[in-house]
Amino acid sequence: MLLYEGKAKQVYSTENENEFIVYFKDDATAFNGEKKATISSKGILNNKISTIMFEMLHDNQINTHFVKSLSDREMLVKKVEILPLEVIIRNITAGSFCKRYGIEEGLVLDEPIFELSYKNDEYGDPMLNEDHAVAMKLATRGEIAFLKDQTLKINELMKEFFLKMNLKLVDFKLEFGKDVDGNIILADEISPDTCRLWDVHTNEKLDKDRFRRDLGDLVQGYEEVLARMNCK
Amino acid sequence: MLLYEGKAKQVYSTENENEFIVYFKDDATAFNGEKKATISSKGILNNKISTIMFEMLHDNQINTHFVKSLSDREMLVKKVEILPLEVIIRNITAGSFCKRYGIEEGLVLDEPIFELSYKNDEYGDPMLNEDHAVAMKLATRGEIAFLKDQTLKINELMKEFFLKMNLKLVDFKLEFGKDVDGNIILADEISPDTCRLWDVHTNEKLDKDRFRRDLGDLVQGYEEVLARMNCK
Repeated sequence: MLLYEGKAKQVYSTENENEFIVYFKDDATAFNGEKKATISSKGILNNKISTIMFEMLHDNQINTHFVKSLSDREMLVKKVEILPLEVIIRNITAGSFCKRYGIEEGLVLDEPIFELSYKNDEYGDPMLNEDHAVAMKLATRGEIAFLKDQTLKINELMKEFFLKMNLKLVDFKLEFGKDVDGNIILADEISPDTCRLWDVHTNEKLDKDRFRRDLGDLVQGYEEVLARMNCK
Repeated sequence: MLLYEGKAKQVYSTENENEFIVYFKDDATAFNGEKKATISSKGILNNKISTIMFEMLHDNQINTHFVKSLSDREMLVKKVEILPLEVIIRNITAGSFCKRYGIEEGLVLDEPIFELSYKNDEYGDPMLNEDHAVAMKLATRGEIAFLKDQTLKINELMKEFFLKMNLKLVDFKLEFGKDVDGNIILADEISPDTCRLWDVHTNEKLDKDRFRRDLGDLVQGYEEVLARMNCK
């Protein structure tokens, strides 16, 4: 049974009440849904890339919702209740950060920036700080401290992982959820839809900015990321 | 010599190189300058109200740029270099907080929200978090910790002060500057232009929202605030 349909994924219930199936669609959206397209095979690529990422993180003691890959577009995951926060890490300046503050793209930051957004399409996923999130009862201070700690660990693991395949991890967005035991675990997806990835040598963008900014064929970029993952 | 002209004030040099004169204008602006008006005597009221506020804070061991009042519209202040950060405290939900996240106005918060904005008219004074401010080299982590500590102290003093005159301190914006010795001290102004003040019993708004939202005569509201200050 379809439980939830997002911009790029659907979530289905299964016979096991503690597990869901995530189905990766070919839909691409940008600028809070203002730009839309269907890009054949994007869902397949994101499912494959996310699977590799969740397995890598699992091997490094990060708890995630990932159980196993079921098919080209389907992933079996633990049932979680998604926290209404988007967690963002920035290693290099890009995207909304540059636009919001008038900052040049591509500056390497001395230390990662940790940023939160309120996951709410109606209000355009607005940025917030920890005090806002606590006041709005989106998470407790302890939960935010845990999110920050986990996300910084995940950043180090992902940076190292991508660097081995000559990719710079510019920034990325994570979502976390509470499992049936109340533990906060990593959920959603990790793909070029949710990470900015640039070639180390050429700075070629191999992520969703190809779609957002018409920088070239999206599938070609995602295929390049997957090919490098499979060759490492 | 005119050194700087802002939306509501001018800053002049003096014969003493360590002191400036602040001149309070009658100009009112809102929504990053989109709405404008000249409101006769607003500058006089804000100079008088700011003087009382700086004196009250000084009496409570808060370092400010205030030296003395010179005339109806002029205040002698210590020379400071203003930090490019606006520091905001929210005790009750209102304004941009409600608009940004779709939250009802007038909810009393369990604890004050501390918020930072990048003081930059071109980008509309965008909100940022501590990591952004540090990455952009607007302040160090130690300086932000000091700003937060000072602002929370100032909030307690101002809340208590206004409550004695039956006013709720809903939220306010402060600016800080570095004096010639490198100390960070409170600067700018403290007035109904920069504080939301509601009557305790009727919730009547006695601040710049009267102008922003056409809620009644602005001068009448500011005069009411000043009258209550002078009667306490």
